[in-house]
Amino acid sequence: MRSHYCGALGTNNIDETVTLCGWVDRRRDHGGVIFLDLRDRDGIVQVVFDPDTEEHFQRADRVRPEYVLKVTGRVRARSEATVNSAMATGEIEVLGKELEILNSAATPPFQLDAHTTVGEDVRLKYRYMDLRRPEMQNRLILRAQITSAIRSFLDGAGFLDIETPILTRATPEGARDYLVPSRTHPGSFFALPQSPQLFKQLLMVSGFDRYYQVAKCFRDEDLRADRQPEFTQIDIETAFLDEDEIMSITERMIRELFQSVLSVELGDFPRMSYAEAMERYGSDKPDLRIPLELVSVDDLMQQVDFKVFRGPADDPDGRVAALKVPGGAKISRKEIDDYTKYVSIYGARGLAWIKVNDLAAGVEGLQSPILKFMPEAVVIEMMTRLQAQDGDIIFFGADKSAVVNESLGALRLKVAESMGLVAEGWAPLWVVDFPMFEDDGSGGWTPLHHPFTAPACSPEELQANPGTALSRAYDMVLNGTELGGGSVRIHQHEMQETVFRILGISDEEAQEKFGFLLDALQYGAPPHGGLAFGLDRLVMLMTGSQSIRDVIAFPKTQSAACVMTDAPGEVSAQQLRELNIRLRQAKQEAAAAAQDE
Amino acid sequence: MRSHYCGALGTNNIDETVTLCGWVDRRRDHGGVIFLDLRDRDGIVQVVFDPDTEEHFQRADRVRPEYVLKVTGRVRARSEATVNSAMATGEIEVLGKELEILNSAATPPFQLDAHTTVGEDVRLKYRYMDLRRPEMQNRLILRAQITSAIRSFLDGAGFLDIETPILTRATPEGARDYLVPSRTHPGSFFALPQSPQLFKQLLMVSGFDRYYQVAKCFRDEDLRADRQPEFTQIDIETAFLDEDEIMSITERMIRELFQSVLSVELGDFPRMSYAEAMERYGSDKPDLRIPLELVSVDDLMQQVDFKVFRGPADDPDGRVAALKVPGGAKISRKEIDDYTKYVSIYGARGLAWIKVNDLAAGVEGLQSPILKFMPEAVVIEMMTRLQAQDGDIIFFGADKSAVVNESLGALRLKVAESMGLVAEGWAPLWVVDFPMFEDDGSGGWTPLHHPFTAPACSPEELQANPGTALSRAYDMVLNGTELGGGSVRIHQHEMQETVFRILGISDEEAQEKFGFLLDALQYGAPPHGGLAFGLDRLVMLMTGSQSIRDVIAFPKTQSAACVMTDAPGEVSAQQLRELNIRLRQAKQEAAAAAQDE
Repeated sequence: MRSHYCGALGTNNIDETVTLCGWVDRRRDHGGVIFLDLRDRDGIVQVVFDPDTEEHFQRADRVRPEYVLKVTGRVRARSEATVNSAMATGEIEVLGKELEILNSAATPPFQLDAHTTVGEDVRLKYRYMDLRRPEMQNRLILRAQITSAIRSFLDGAGFLDIETPILTRATPEGARDYLVPSRTHPGSFFALPQSPQLFKQLLMVSGFDRYYQVAKCFRDEDLRADRQPEFTQIDIETAFLDEDEIMSITERMIRELFQSVLSVELGDFPRMSYAEAMERYGSDKPDLRIPLELVSVDDLMQQVDFKVFRGPADDPDGRVAALKVPGGAKISRKEIDDYTKYVSIYGARGLAWIKVNDLAAGVEGLQSPILKFMPEAVVIEMMTRLQAQDGDIIFFGADKSAVVNESLGALRLKVAESMGLVAEGWAPLWVVDFPMFEDDGSGGWTPLHHPFTAPACSPEELQANPGTALSRAYDMVLNGTELGGGSVRIHQHEMQETVFRILGISDEEAQEKFGFLLDALQYGAPPHGGLAFGLDRLVMLMTGSQSIRDVIAFPKTQSAACVMTDAPGEVSAQQLRELNIRLRQAKQEAAAAAQDE
Repeated sequence: MRSHYCGALGTNNIDETVTLCGWVDRRRDHGGVIFLDLRDRDGIVQVVFDPDTEEHFQRADRVRPEYVLKVTGRVRARSEATVNSAMATGEIEVLGKELEILNSAATPPFQLDAHTTVGEDVRLKYRYMDLRRPEMQNRLILRAQITSAIRSFLDGAGFLDIETPILTRATPEGARDYLVPSRTHPGSFFALPQSPQLFKQLLMVSGFDRYYQVAKCFRDEDLRADRQPEFTQIDIETAFLDEDEIMSITERMIRELFQSVLSVELGDFPRMSYAEAMERYGSDKPDLRIPLELVSVDDLMQQVDFKVFRGPADDPDGRVAALKVPGGAKISRKEIDDYTKYVSIYGARGLAWIKVNDLAAGVEGLQSPILKFMPEAVVIEMMTRLQAQDGDIIFFGADKSAVVNESLGALRLKVAESMGLVAEGWAPLWVVDFPMFEDDGSGGWTPLHHPFTAPACSPEELQANPGTALSRAYDMVLNGTELGGGSVRIHQHEMQETVFRILGISDEEAQEKFGFLLDALQYGAPPHGGLAFGLDRLVMLMTGSQSIRDVIAFPKTQSAACVMTDAPGEVSAQQLRELNIRLRQAKQEAAAAAQDE
């Protein structure tokens, strides 16, 4: 129907007759002339109808916002006075000759350019309207470009796009599964996959060598701001490649993606061990755009009597760390109180601080409630170690290492953001050398990744030192977000059994849960490994979106509902009967009970 | 780890030192030398170890089928006597220098080259082994190529890949939904989508203009041989294009797909009306490779007294049709009985036939139990109309038109196949001009497609003549298989209401089921339409596979189970409690009850 997209018109089209299709974004009358801003997915252009074209002018006079039009007219330059430099097509306009109203529109539930005046619930209910906003169009267009660029790269690198089942059985990620009652096997249930992990490993056992999939995954968890019950994963697995090769290919993929879609050069990604990331940033996904670091001062604090510091400093599982914030001396008492509350979310029982007002004056030039507990020499040595300068504030964490890392790591981000210390640009890195296991708090071990992750040592060494063994896992981190993670997998049966033994998973349990994978490892499994990227998060980063809901066409709310389609909904007694299930409590009772909890 | 894929080696690699990784396909000892056939996804190559390389020879001596090896060696030409022309790499072999056993393998549950000796259940249980077979590898590799080629085409044509939800609400296709109990909304259920139909229409209302998705769809139906509970659809929707433009783009897509993947030229697709397809082939998806046609003889049969023919000939809803099969006079009585049984599946109460033995002898030269019921002149005129020749058999159907079309349409395929009358090659076509509605058998109307299909007339005309109104739907048919179907959709509220009224769907029911779509049509819906291709069937056709299970990596059985992972499986009482459901009958009871039915 159309000859051009609205947004594609420019001065090189002047004097051409064009046909456009789109929506009325705005309509104005001015000096007996009607101005229509016509919008399509490519952009907006101004169309002018003057009374000469009587029939069409009259029609133009009837149109209202969001009417769907087909317009034919001639492109002409705007006069210098009317050029609109804020508009991509602002140097031209279309002098309308013919106008066909393809569809009318009721008054929209909200004005697109005033979407912030209504709540997100209204925008989600009328999602098809909200998606008309150019920002939303651009986000989903960029998402399609990103997916396409990734696919091209992987297709070109010999990866095969292979689909794995959605109706499957519980996978080992450990989050809560969505379940689907089976009609043909009454009393049994499918689970929706939390990831294609087991299937992709089986594909390697099958010899497909290089696999990828843009895979839907599902987790029935209580949702945080950046989570959705269904999310999309760029899922990759390879055989006969080691971790360096896998990291090299996928790093190249992300680098070329940023080049082609954003024209951004990411350069080579540095690698950092998990231990170093925790030590310096209190996080296994450090945001390297922030020039703040945690510095350990345990050795100094072993010299003080102050119990709050001395205890953790002497504790092998404890840590005392300092976070120096340049220019932070101006932070108010009120703000410090807020930060103290903030770190308490992460288990910190307080937030000690020292303001550096005048270093030349020695301890006299410092300001802090804790100075009185520390010998002057220790304080001075600490200032030297931290390379403190006038105007700094130094925060302290002293507790179990995990608490210190988590709370100071979070504080680092928070302070950097509110003080504008986050540099522009992109800071990617690999985090490597993760521990295989972590203490489960009751004398046992849980896997830091999943139980199929290969260790960087022999079964015997692993059995001997599970607490210090490192895995062959790797995470790709960008601007403080984990873009993707993966590992070389265990491909030998003996090693898999060792890991299960350390995790306290009995042979029966292992066989019951992953029997088919264990079987497969016996029939000639190749060395293999892979990685999965969270597509939604990648698109969020690349589009600068604050909410995951902004990069998904039809997202769920935080209570895992779709307010547009009213899903989930009621089903008939007949449907439940066919599935051999009944409700435990009627819907309203159950809802009331859930609210009471 | 490798320098080459096994199957990529040829005479141009002679004297190169290569490193290969793969599986031992076969192992032979001959004259003190060990021959290993090494297999990867690209093919198979012969590797020779002689006793010179002692350590590696000893290792080679230990390997068994399906061991995983890394081999380094020199490519050399085979002697003329040992060239194996049945093997793609049969002109060369690799003289092994080094061998590393990457993994051992237990004795496989079945030998790959003897997979037909075990049942499909065994192959499905050890799917990861069955997928190692070169035929299976090639099918899934071709599937990936097909998907990739389609995506490239659509990306290049400005289509945006947009994901729609899997956790959603019941869609209007009318098959049984898979349900997912909601934990956060106890008593409510998500449905898995039978197609993204409503979402893709909403994306058009949102202005995305051209959308596609390789979409997982779900139907909880009792499975036929070519169905799976989850299947994949190439889902396409466009705005501002009419049916000719949509058909033209998608036809080009399929044509380019066949060119690029199979090097096949399909040419321009003919178009045929639904009425003509039913008249000539008794099917809305005629296989044009078969040179047999149905010919109506109602007018002739109105001249006979034979009730079986005369009744349907006089009935406006009836039909008497003939199917002439050249060379069919040699079909035995036993075979005719089998065909009679076959057409009874489709409701035919018998299968009349005439064998043409000697046309020159007039009626005397014909052989049939029904000749005695028909005047000679009618028989002769019929022979002329059918252009009968000696050696033909003519089958007859006489009943309601629907029964005649279905039974003779099916017989046409059956006879053609068993007599080898199906031509080689590809016969695509479009079927168009479908009726909007069909009689629901109780005085009402049901949609031939879905209730969002636009009619080719005004709301007033549609209301006046629902039985004869045509729709703007179109199906793409290839070799008797419906590859895809679609339509221009209703984009105006008034038309949608008219259709619902004719279908007897009340305003409340419409609002309850599709309220969000009806709302959307009021806020400026553009003219739009689309089409969906069944990817699994397309891949079946393009790979020449007989079973849909051969083109899906991890398919379900006919009872909708996965024998490899044992899905569906049992879940815990705790999980059910969280979802506010309980089993109606315990699993074993329910299974017993289901078996009794």
